[in-house]
Amino acid sequence: MLMASTAMGQKLLTLEDVMGSGNNIYNLIPKNKYTQWWGNVPVETTHEEVRELLTGQSLVTVERINEIAGEKVVASGHNILLPYGRQTIAQVQTGSKRMLVDWKEGRIVWSQPIPADAAHQDFSQQSRNLAFTRQGNLYVMTAEGQELQVSKDGSTDGSNDIVYGQSVHRDEFGITKGTFWSPNGQRLAFYRMDQSMVAGYPQVDISQRIAAVTMDKYPMAGETSHQVKVGVFDVKTQKTTWLQLIGAPDDYHTNLSWAPDGKLLYIFELNREQNHMQLVAYDTETGKLEKRLLEERHEKYVEPMHGLDFLPWDNSKAVMQSQRDGWNHLYLLDVTTGETEQLTVGEWVVQDFLGFNVKSKSLLYLGNESDPRRSCIYRYDLKNRRTTMLGADDGVHYASLSEDGSMLIDRYSSPTVPRSINLISTQPTRGRRPNMVSNILTATDPWQDEGYKIPEITSGSIKAADGVTDLYYRMVKPVDFDPSKKYPTVVYVYGGPHAHNVDARWHWCLRGWEAYMASKGYLLFILDNRGSEWRGRDFEQITFRHLGEEEMRDQMEGVKFLKSLPYVDAERMGVHGWSYGGFMTINLMCTYPDVFKVGVAGGPVIDWKYYEVMYGERYMDTPQQNAEGYERCSLLNKAKNLKGRLQIIFGYNDPTCVPQHTLSFLRACEDAGTQPDLFTYPGAGHNMFGRDQIHLHERITRYFDDFLK
Amino acid sequence: MLMASTAMGQKLLTLEDVMGSGNNIYNLIPKNKYTQWWGNVPVETTHEEVRELLTGQSLVTVERINEIAGEKVVASGHNILLPYGRQTIAQVQTGSKRMLVDWKEGRIVWSQPIPADAAHQDFSQQSRNLAFTRQGNLYVMTAEGQELQVSKDGSTDGSNDIVYGQSVHRDEFGITKGTFWSPNGQRLAFYRMDQSMVAGYPQVDISQRIAAVTMDKYPMAGETSHQVKVGVFDVKTQKTTWLQLIGAPDDYHTNLSWAPDGKLLYIFELNREQNHMQLVAYDTETGKLEKRLLEERHEKYVEPMHGLDFLPWDNSKAVMQSQRDGWNHLYLLDVTTGETEQLTVGEWVVQDFLGFNVKSKSLLYLGNESDPRRSCIYRYDLKNRRTTMLGADDGVHYASLSEDGSMLIDRYSSPTVPRSINLISTQPTRGRRPNMVSNILTATDPWQDEGYKIPEITSGSIKAADGVTDLYYRMVKPVDFDPSKKYPTVVYVYGGPHAHNVDARWHWCLRGWEAYMASKGYLLFILDNRGSEWRGRDFEQITFRHLGEEEMRDQMEGVKFLKSLPYVDAERMGVHGWSYGGFMTINLMCTYPDVFKVGVAGGPVIDWKYYEVMYGERYMDTPQQNAEGYERCSLLNKAKNLKGRLQIIFGYNDPTCVPQHTLSFLRACEDAGTQPDLFTYPGAGHNMFGRDQIHLHERITRYFDDFLK
Repeated sequence: MLMASTAMGQKLLTLEDVMGSGNNIYNLIPKNKYTQWWGNVPVETTHEEVRELLTGQSLVTVERINEIAGEKVVASGHNILLPYGRQTIAQVQTGSKRMLVDWKEGRIVWSQPIPADAAHQDFSQQSRNLAFTRQGNLYVMTAEGQELQVSKDGSTDGSNDIVYGQSVHRDEFGITKGTFWSPNGQRLAFYRMDQSMVAGYPQVDISQRIAAVTMDKYPMAGETSHQVKVGVFDVKTQKTTWLQLIGAPDDYHTNLSWAPDGKLLYIFELNREQNHMQLVAYDTETGKLEKRLLEERHEKYVEPMHGLDFLPWDNSKAVMQSQRDGWNHLYLLDVTTGETEQLTVGEWVVQDFLGFNVKSKSLLYLGNESDPRRSCIYRYDLKNRRTTMLGADDGVHYASLSEDGSMLIDRYSSPTVPRSINLISTQPTRGRRPNMVSNILTATDPWQDEGYKIPEITSGSIKAADGVTDLYYRMVKPVDFDPSKKYPTVVYVYGGPHAHNVDARWHWCLRGWEAYMASKGYLLFILDNRGSEWRGRDFEQITFRHLGEEEMRDQMEGVKFLKSLPYVDAERMGVHGWSYGGFMTINLMCTYPDVFKVGVAGGPVIDWKYYEVMYGERYMDTPQQNAEGYERCSLLNKAKNLKGRLQIIFGYNDPTCVPQHTLSFLRACEDAGTQPDLFTYPGAGHNMFGRDQIHLHERITRYFDDFLK
Repeated sequence: MLMASTAMGQKLLTLEDVMGSGNNIYNLIPKNKYTQWWGNVPVETTHEEVRELLTGQSLVTVERINEIAGEKVVASGHNILLPYGRQTIAQVQTGSKRMLVDWKEGRIVWSQPIPADAAHQDFSQQSRNLAFTRQGNLYVMTAEGQELQVSKDGSTDGSNDIVYGQSVHRDEFGITKGTFWSPNGQRLAFYRMDQSMVAGYPQVDISQRIAAVTMDKYPMAGETSHQVKVGVFDVKTQKTTWLQLIGAPDDYHTNLSWAPDGKLLYIFELNREQNHMQLVAYDTETGKLEKRLLEERHEKYVEPMHGLDFLPWDNSKAVMQSQRDGWNHLYLLDVTTGETEQLTVGEWVVQDFLGFNVKSKSLLYLGNESDPRRSCIYRYDLKNRRTTMLGADDGVHYASLSEDGSMLIDRYSSPTVPRSINLISTQPTRGRRPNMVSNILTATDPWQDEGYKIPEITSGSIKAADGVTDLYYRMVKPVDFDPSKKYPTVVYVYGGPHAHNVDARWHWCLRGWEAYMASKGYLLFILDNRGSEWRGRDFEQITFRHLGEEEMRDQMEGVKFLKSLPYVDAERMGVHGWSYGGFMTINLMCTYPDVFKVGVAGGPVIDWKYYEVMYGERYMDTPQQNAEGYERCSLLNKAKNLKGRLQIIFGYNDPTCVPQHTLSFLRACEDAGTQPDLFTYPGAGHNMFGRDQIHLHERITRYFDDFLK
């Protein structure tokens, strides 16, 4: 019994503990191993070396690499890549060069200079050409070390009026970069974005001797947007071909996908209204439209998020993702006819397409078929249309496939498993469950190991405001919970699309701050309302043109549930959220002023007209088209209702929810005679990091301590 | 007894009451009468008319003026001027014209158009020429209605790179405007300021659809300053003569004074280092230096604040003010020789020179000879060098002289007199005290009349930290004061030069908010430390090169005194101040973290390097010259010491203490892990007005209620 009591722990978590910045941080994170694939051989990297995962046999050491290179080119085994299966070649890189080292032959196989100011680097493993940008222009460093200037009219004056080779459309539609190598790495598709017609938002840098301003191109909803083109640069001929893109100048060109033959380029084209998507193929040698393969329309919006994944054994077919039937599923697209065949089906979503098992002609993906909060690994066999779950049936998994896809490394956690790493065969087997090749690591609970008091963390469901839909919550009870007491309760909320808070990870995806608050005697409650991700199209699109309203109705169902619990103090209810959750927090404070006594809102949206074109118009249309909706959803009109204590915190240089949001709300409160509180982090953007993050959470906590406790 | 109890009042003052914005405002301000001089005849204006003050006889009505004008040119009798003694001529003005109306003859005598966009209007009563600016250029509208463009290269692009006819040197050195009519109004001296070399501070306007930025020319201490020239425009010849100014391009050209003959122009020239002042005369017809009359040097600084006032009966002599003997006194300057003769003398200061009694050849001035907190009226007779006090010997007086100076209207209040208006003869009399001609008004206490509880307000003195100097304080006790209780106590502080808080006005110059706080149960304490105004040069200059340090030492003497009082709760001490007082508040909170539990600082200076050249370098020299002093006085270095609750409030568009001050302090606190609170008023400048002012004081009060009460 004494043992058990010790196991329960006596220490209370500190902010430094949960923010991972204290002296004890390595002991508080579940143990880990770092792995990668060497072709089809799983390897483990350590600080000193790379070794075979299953045998533990050393392949190459850091010392050996540096010895061969004749200088210190790598500091840790984690920075060594083994890009070529079966070849004893390591890829390493410094700030000024990238090199391939044959550790068996003991020689530098190849090296390439990297200019010190090269940004947005995109290296082709195939050709060893490197694409990069410098100011607004695009360059290629060839495998032979020759620097080619791809574009000339990019902005070099800091204005960002014209930029090449960078992500466009503000990273919406799954876009994360601006260069796309052809399969053989000899041709480079790239974006050119003209922002000269876009208004600049003034961002003030107070760290200079005299505060300086930068005009950050920011297209606000309903305002003039940027214009994007796509070019294809041929490294051999050094010529650029411009695609003759269909549609209007401010349409969206998303999810660029090269055909395996390196001639055609597929683009998911979307109109600015975002209700009509077309999959189009261009001939990259002529720039001409080759064909329109298919289109999707929806009265609310269509949102392409994924490119094509061509079958390695059949260039005429590709895997495509679509939520056209209401749920994100895999389709097999025939690129010669444009015909599609739905593969996966059901009231659940494919969360990620992982790749192919080439031998068995199978697809591998993550899906939440067994529970909306989970993300499990599945194999879909094209031969017999059968689906098989691989690995554990609980938790949230990530997987990386071997070269041929016959094996994968599965990393997951579940509410009770802090971390588990497994090597799994993806080959079809006769038995019901496939073979687990090896359990690489199962971590114990580090908080328990270190003797901390751990709050009780549970998950469950309630009905949404529609009375039908299940919504999932996480509840964190205060440490030393006594059901006969009444506890101050804080609702943490996000509530927006493309995100969720509750899933079947370790501790139900608990955020460290919640554990800290529980250790201070608060009860925490987190509910994923309608509008959030991984619950299908209609669940998300219910909020269309009136963001915030359905989300709040659902959160109030959560409050109703909380009030039904004898240990929740309904007189001491608080709410906290960031970004969309900041919008929700202020909205809840001003819409239900008698429910929430204290709120802390971070980086909030206040009026969607100050938010960007891409995201804003998808969910709200333009202020011109949906004037009534913008007015109804604007918190400026609700500032007068504020009654409780509300602190708003924003990054002084937030480029996402620009400061105009928060400042306009302050002005509205001042005009209406209501009294929010405020804080800001000069130099910070949409989120705070490092030292600021600790400071921020100390601040948030103090506010609840001041006014809710 | 019942009567007495009623007289004591039962009502508590509200914020709206003390901020003068409630329904009751007219009843809470001491009764008033509005007066002016019609030559040597005192008149009273009412909403309906102008009448003789002593007889009550009506001179002219608003109705009559509008009838003669044939349109509504004036809405209130308060807007009627009688510029010409003995002539039945009223001057009135609308947005588009200025006119003279002869009410006896019933005709418009003269009228002149005023362009709708005319800024910085300066009308010569003598010539009826009007100087004005439009964007960066200077214009004259002649008495005949002809518009002349004086300058051409002023900025019209909103940059303010070059501006004409506007105040220069950021309104320091007593400068309030940029045009100066010669005595006959036919020649116009004016400033030209080139700011093209001055850095712009980015001010962001969030009230636009998309936030916009203005670069506000702001020369920070030690940085490049603007360059000023002086031109003289002759209306008759339409030619401009540029004065060949002595000194460096960034020197200061202050207190321009025309010689009575309209040919010479006197300028108090000061070097950028502000330790060498020269009084120089220029020939305005040639622009050449005529003569250097005198100079003043001081190892700390010299600060010219006043021009010359020529004797009406002797053009070779002028009254000049200087604190060269340590106290601001009147001197008689012989402009032919540059010789000066000290007139007033003593350890007190002349606060204002009022003018001359031409008949008796006397000077009239305000001085604090009888008590540093007072401002009384004195006559100095040049004939016999005798000084005589006019009017009451208590209180703070303002006086306006009749045309020949033989009479004045004296307006004053004293700690117990809410308002008194008196007509006083300035003629020497045989008796010890001059004749009061008539008491025009003695107002009763409106707070008492309205039945409010009035806190006890007292003033007294303590010794400064030097052990010698007397410092004056005001103490406001909570209503229903019970000496056996202990009260939360708030120190209100300003502390900087050119200002004071305690004087012998009504209620000892009580600020309305203090009365409100007293009505909520706080004790208020306000001390004018060394460095503040009207106590002589050395009292002010003790702070030179280390602003804040002596001031704090004195404030801590105030705290010591407070702690000696049984009814002051030393565990509940707060501090509040704005601007320099914001600097003091944060400084006190961070320097004496165990003394002050709560502070509210408004529009603070944080580091003098972010303050302007003129004020900043006067008291601190440049950051290059006084690096150690700047470091010692910077609150950035003290951010780490913050312990109590400190709220900083700033106007988001403060052009005086630019937001970089507050934001840099926040950044320093964030980096040091301390937790100030924050608020801002978007669109507001250095101070808040109207609705914002109420909101602000509600906010300040709430902060003390939250954490001090």
